[in-house]
Amino acid sequence: MNAGISNRDLMMTLGQAARTAARMLALAPAEQKNQALMAMAAKIRRSTADILSENRRDLENARARELKGSFLDRLTLDEARLDAMARGLEEIAALPDPVGQVMAAWTRPNGLAISRVRVPIGVIGIIYESRPNVTADAGGLCLKSGNAAILRGGSDSFHSSAAIVSCLQRGLDIAGLPRTVIQMVPNAERDCVGLMLEGLGGTIDLIVPRGGKSLVARVQQDARVPVFSHLEGICHVYVDKAADTEMAQRVVLNAKMRRTGICGAAETILIDRAAADRNLKPIIATLIDAGCEVRGDEACRAADPRVKPATEEDWSTEYLDAIVAMKLVDGVDEAMAHIAAYGSQHTDAIITGDAATAARFLNEVDSAIVLHNASTQFADGGEFGFGAEIGIATGKLHARGPVGVEQLTTFKYQVRGAGQTRP
Amino acid sequence: MNAGISNRDLMMTLGQAARTAARMLALAPAEQKNQALMAMAAKIRRSTADILSENRRDLENARARELKGSFLDRLTLDEARLDAMARGLEEIAALPDPVGQVMAAWTRPNGLAISRVRVPIGVIGIIYESRPNVTADAGGLCLKSGNAAILRGGSDSFHSSAAIVSCLQRGLDIAGLPRTVIQMVPNAERDCVGLMLEGLGGTIDLIVPRGGKSLVARVQQDARVPVFSHLEGICHVYVDKAADTEMAQRVVLNAKMRRTGICGAAETILIDRAAADRNLKPIIATLIDAGCEVRGDEACRAADPRVKPATEEDWSTEYLDAIVAMKLVDGVDEAMAHIAAYGSQHTDAIITGDAATAARFLNEVDSAIVLHNASTQFADGGEFGFGAEIGIATGKLHARGPVGVEQLTTFKYQVRGAGQTRP
Repeated sequence: MNAGISNRDLMMTLGQAARTAARMLALAPAEQKNQALMAMAAKIRRSTADILSENRRDLENARARELKGSFLDRLTLDEARLDAMARGLEEIAALPDPVGQVMAAWTRPNGLAISRVRVPIGVIGIIYESRPNVTADAGGLCLKSGNAAILRGGSDSFHSSAAIVSCLQRGLDIAGLPRTVIQMVPNAERDCVGLMLEGLGGTIDLIVPRGGKSLVARVQQDARVPVFSHLEGICHVYVDKAADTEMAQRVVLNAKMRRTGICGAAETILIDRAAADRNLKPIIATLIDAGCEVRGDEACRAADPRVKPATEEDWSTEYLDAIVAMKLVDGVDEAMAHIAAYGSQHTDAIITGDAATAARFLNEVDSAIVLHNASTQFADGGEFGFGAEIGIATGKLHARGPVGVEQLTTFKYQVRGAGQTRP
Repeated sequence: MNAGISNRDLMMTLGQAARTAARMLALAPAEQKNQALMAMAAKIRRSTADILSENRRDLENARARELKGSFLDRLTLDEARLDAMARGLEEIAALPDPVGQVMAAWTRPNGLAISRVRVPIGVIGIIYESRPNVTADAGGLCLKSGNAAILRGGSDSFHSSAAIVSCLQRGLDIAGLPRTVIQMVPNAERDCVGLMLEGLGGTIDLIVPRGGKSLVARVQQDARVPVFSHLEGICHVYVDKAADTEMAQRVVLNAKMRRTGICGAAETILIDRAAADRNLKPIIATLIDAGCEVRGDEACRAADPRVKPATEEDWSTEYLDAIVAMKLVDGVDEAMAHIAAYGSQHTDAIITGDAATAARFLNEVDSAIVLHNASTQFADGGEFGFGAEIGIATGKLHARGPVGVEQLTTFKYQVRGAGQTRP
């Protein structure tokens, strides 16, 4: 750092530059943005050796600091991961451009023609952990949706992220867009995050945190600008008395065990007491046989001695691991009451053959995503057909559920008249 | 107040009751909500004498406190104003119910059927000044959109608002809905506002402030929950060189002078230098002849000696009065630069016969509402065809522009499957 230039000054300059870039980018045609995305992907492919060398610097530093296995795994890049990163950018290029879409248009009796038109939000700050791949995803999604991005990745991935940002900025050059469309916080000092959360003097419109609960909780607590995020995904599967046992086994197993570390993984299974005789033992056995620890109430433990006792804490725990909580409930009403009390308004599923019960669950459970006869692991922008996503939001305003390019836009009203005045 | 019960305890109880009511109301059919709205209107009509008597108590207290004319005018109710209040509720009943509307629906290649369905936001806190009519408007709009309301009006209108809330709650009774759907903060002490801004222990989803700049600024500053609001409306009319002079005169006059106290009133007029010879004098004369004070740059003062000198401060002042700032600009580019520098992203208009220039203005000016050849005073939910509005929002997320019943909803994803699991 140059003597005399504070992080505050540096960051304010970054914010101003992003604001200016956002105004230019808002007017860029789809072809120009897509050209940039394709050029970024090509540049990442051509820069494999360079990016991997920068990644080794980060890995050496991390090992010297004795950071542990899963952390190192997320930090590690290889040729396959870089190829996936490039493909991700190409897929974003292939998505329809949301900017300029007319969401609604109508004419008033006085002849005024009103259109509601999608426009970018402006400047988006993304705060994430030491996962270099987020750099390309977040930069690409912001560009496609017409937003300038200020990226602040974990300090342990600083060199890897910087190498990737160089490729992204080269792609912007090639397409004739300013490099300031995608900027990276220029040093790893922690106070830069605080400055971003304050909004950099009104230049940041939105913060998206990507990472674990402690990162998201800090952002939600301290941010003075809007935040799209979810704190945790305590997802439920309710197996109704009218469920097909085989379907319930398959869906519960997938919801819990396909990948245990993602936010859409089920954490609590609720079984309708009225069909517990039929459903409880097979579902418990399927899970335990797949290597899952089951923590249950007395009825579950009576059904299978391998079930461990569940405590009150289990109902509000996001394990993100091969552990599940399970209990009997008296029908859909008690299931919905349990979800209202312990859920996180993220994703919840019902398994039932009864259409009326399914309709009640879908209407009454107040979560971003509610599913009937399908796995909670479908809580994903790709699975929804949104293309890539920047995350899942459980807030109720603006974005809810998977946040793709469309959710990264807002709108304005364009009104066309012929000299109308208001009486 | 009962000894031993703190305002905090009282308010927390209110919040919990609202949350429970919101869950019930979210499932209420349109007919039941409309029945309540019609019953409320009828009850207000039948309670005219009672409401006016409570209003006289407020007015006597206000006069004893030597409050001034415009304040007393806003506080005063009469038979015509009560009738307008009742009609407002009937008009809200006639609007389509936004809740349950399917905003989008699609089927994925794996057969999952995904719907994006409108649902209420939950619990909305409305903080307003001593204008009793807001009580019925806000309560009615929240009810129609399926949201429980916590109303906190100005302390000087406490008795009037309480009498109106009694009518609203009687309407809820008649329709079989809980009275806690519309609650009023039970005393006029100031700390209740602070508790609402903190969100009442997570029970409030959204705050809508209605009132002057100091009220809105305090809410925006202190709220820990999302806020729909606008701080000020510094609205511009840009008269392009390709404007029809007669249209420009009419629209500028209406934009400034139809009502000077509303947020959509124009505050600054920008005149294209290239046609100043033709447009400047007539526009100045029209405004001054209508009783408007014009503050202008040197060119304006040279055109008409009655123009007073404008200072830097004028460009960022919301007069809300019969005063306007005016200057020459070099075409649409300088006009848009001026608006970006001094505007409030509320409502801005261009007068021009040139379609390309109009398109640039509509696309590039970053305001909630941009108009071509029409008055800024059309910035209004009723004029947009939304029916009643709870206000205008200049934030970019979720609600932007007039906030009607549709903008008081959010959505959820309902996913219907046949046992799909994620590969």
